[in-house]
Amino acid sequence: MKVAFQGEAGAYSEQALLGHFGGVETFPCESFEAVFEAVNSGVCQTAMIPIENSLAGSIHQNYDLLLRNDLKIVGEYFLRVRHCLIVAPGVDKRDLRKALSHPQALGQCASYLRSHGIQAEQGYDTAGSVKLLKESGARDTAAIASRRAAELYGMQVLEEGIEDDPENYTRFLAIQREPKPFLGEAKTSIVFTLKNVPGALFKAMSVFALRDLDLTKIESRPLQGSPWEYLFYIDFIGSIQEEPVRRALDHLGEYAVMLRVLGSYPRFKG
Amino acid sequence: MKVAFQGEAGAYSEQALLGHFGGVETFPCESFEAVFEAVNSGVCQTAMIPIENSLAGSIHQNYDLLLRNDLKIVGEYFLRVRHCLIVAPGVDKRDLRKALSHPQALGQCASYLRSHGIQAEQGYDTAGSVKLLKESGARDTAAIASRRAAELYGMQVLEEGIEDDPENYTRFLAIQREPKPFLGEAKTSIVFTLKNVPGALFKAMSVFALRDLDLTKIESRPLQGSPWEYLFYIDFIGSIQEEPVRRALDHLGEYAVMLRVLGSYPRFKG
Repeated sequence: MKVAFQGEAGAYSEQALLGHFGGVETFPCESFEAVFEAVNSGVCQTAMIPIENSLAGSIHQNYDLLLRNDLKIVGEYFLRVRHCLIVAPGVDKRDLRKALSHPQALGQCASYLRSHGIQAEQGYDTAGSVKLLKESGARDTAAIASRRAAELYGMQVLEEGIEDDPENYTRFLAIQREPKPFLGEAKTSIVFTLKNVPGALFKAMSVFALRDLDLTKIESRPLQGSPWEYLFYIDFIGSIQEEPVRRALDHLGEYAVMLRVLGSYPRFKG
Repeated sequence: MKVAFQGEAGAYSEQALLGHFGGVETFPCESFEAVFEAVNSGVCQTAMIPIENSLAGSIHQNYDLLLRNDLKIVGEYFLRVRHCLIVAPGVDKRDLRKALSHPQALGQCASYLRSHGIQAEQGYDTAGSVKLLKESGARDTAAIASRRAAELYGMQVLEEGIEDDPENYTRFLAIQREPKPFLGEAKTSIVFTLKNVPGALFKAMSVFALRDLDLTKIESRPLQGSPWEYLFYIDFIGSIQEEPVRRALDHLGEYAVMLRVLGSYPRFKG
């Protein structure tokens, strides 16, 4: 089995997919578009994409790609993000002037960098910054990335867990072309649009509330080409194999202009 | 009157504030934090911040700043974003190899750039890219920004309206320290959190639906420090001066853990 992810070897996405799938072959892609294409074309059976970070919020590009592609969500995974300060072997913390990483990782370590007088420098991605740092041979620069990235490129971790807020989790989704049967507690993800009339969202919420279905996430996104109309992405506990869920979605269909089930999949259990 | 905005002179935010306020003094700031600070400190009476783009979605950083600062929304403005291909005087389109702009503007002109064989190069902001281009003297590079930015820096507009999707609008909010009295149809913006129990959002929506109050926007944001709990930002038609709105907010207070009114302000009329 070969699983696609965005970034260089050692990226947090790769760490998440290894945590979820165990020992599989991993397939690095330059962009999220390329990740979806790898699954669409059959080069990979599955992909792992980040969808939401507890500090930074949703990764909207992947919501848009879920809508544009006809893939199914078959799993979720929560990764505790622990950023490491990574340097070439032998470099001392007092030598550091700059830290290179993805803008989001830099933002999550802003207080740490400030208090150590280290200047943030934006790079393409986290693991890619470690690779770049190694190639450059710089000894006044660190990269911020995962411990795995440091190990892969033979670099040294000076400090682990340098993120300002320890409640730093990223939720990932596993996606593939066909749904995958499973047992146990399920979560379902859907996307829909509503008529632009008063009370529309209230009616949409009612189909879940009236059946005691527990929403775990709601996200609104502007609908391209229709300014100020919204797409709603909702996650809730339950599977489309279950009668109340099927009835709720039937009921939602009465109000929705468009409704698509992105997948029912096993709920992540720490 | 002096109004703060983020970016260089000629930024879309400056265009929006001039459209909204007419001839006022404008105060450019490097970051959104600096914009809020300019109003908090009294350097400016008011600021104009972008909150949502019809293609790219919400500007989350400004939602977070609205929450962290105690300023009131006193107005809204919708700007039709028309990107221009801007060059040094005398440069021909056939000479162009690169186009410099803010990543979001580059993304909105991606098809145009591709079809003209022009490579995108990321810059700090739109108007700032025009300034940078002028300083560099480059003749194989264009900037993408507003017509106003081209005029301010004495540069030439080769083509106007190069965005891929013409439905490209940005909504701006005017913010200041004290609410401002007004007449006419109002919109109100609030932010709240809910207990993490089934049906909580349905109950929250009910307080508006039961009073026929029309929601124009809902946005959820993760609550920092409480992974997977959400802040909800809602806009609806009506003013806190009106009885049904006051009752709806009282009612919402029964379910909400935190509830704040960000402001009632005149609804934008094209």
